[in-house]
Amino acid sequence: MNCHFRAANVNDLPDIVRMLADDFLGRARERYEEPLAESYVNAFREIEADPNNELIVAEAEGRVVGTLQLTFTPSISFQGGKRATVESVRVDEQHRGKGIGHEMMLWAINRAKQNGCVSMQLTTNAERTDAHRFYENLGFSGTHLGMKIKLK
Amino acid sequence: MNCHFRAANVNDLPDIVRMLADDFLGRARERYEEPLAESYVNAFREIEADPNNELIVAEAEGRVVGTLQLTFTPSISFQGGKRATVESVRVDEQHRGKGIGHEMMLWAINRAKQNGCVSMQLTTNAERTDAHRFYENLGFSGTHLGMKIKLK
Repeated sequence: MNCHFRAANVNDLPDIVRMLADDFLGRARERYEEPLAESYVNAFREIEADPNNELIVAEAEGRVVGTLQLTFTPSISFQGGKRATVESVRVDEQHRGKGIGHEMMLWAINRAKQNGCVSMQLTTNAERTDAHRFYENLGFSGTHLGMKIKLK
Repeated sequence: MNCHFRAANVNDLPDIVRMLADDFLGRARERYEEPLAESYVNAFREIEADPNNELIVAEAEGRVVGTLQLTFTPSISFQGGKRATVESVRVDEQHRGKGIGHEMMLWAINRAKQNGCVSMQLTTNAERTDAHRFYENLGFSGTHLGMKIKLK
């Protein structure tokens, strides 16, 4: 499937939240309802205003079929090498198994290279074993432990 | 030991690079030399100009004894919850074992809470088993696999 990639606009937000909520971990933590909670819109505006954050949607046949967020982080480590982080990668449930996720990640890797990043990183829940294989196929290595603490 | 925390200034850069280089992984990838490579200074200027990135130093007895970088990432996930990421956490070799790292992380967690973050995350190399215990003692859980790909 051939996707078109672009920065999300505020009208894409319901599609994005729907995809985030349609997931065994996401369902407990998102609120996909009409109208969307104001906190989603506020976060969207913050991302939109930040040149180091890009919320991306993949379109196919005129529909949004996937999303991901790219963050560029200037860093002193690696001789001042900028890093790319990819988060919240989701493909619409109806369009899985068509290679869209792979296409999205290849696009993201290319975007990070264009932006001068020395590396791309991500964390994926230890329970998402399918995701581990998916990222390994793209060339990622699971060299790190991803640790989190809730603050709220 | 009671530390004082502040945003790094460009004069702290040699201390920061020295600490990053003084490490079994850092030694192969940093260049601690006089003058510092321009790429370090450029990265510092980018961090300084970005309100979502903070390069912090810990001072004790008038000297820089530790450093870390905090990144705040607006995000749609978690109902538009902002995340904090901490990277490049280092304590001066001569000042280890005094609880400075713990104090630094408590400060960083508090800073992220003040900034409204819903969670803090980090990745630590799978080989750094001491670091895993260190972060677990602070309340972090190693729930994720941290994956990386080099782009250069």
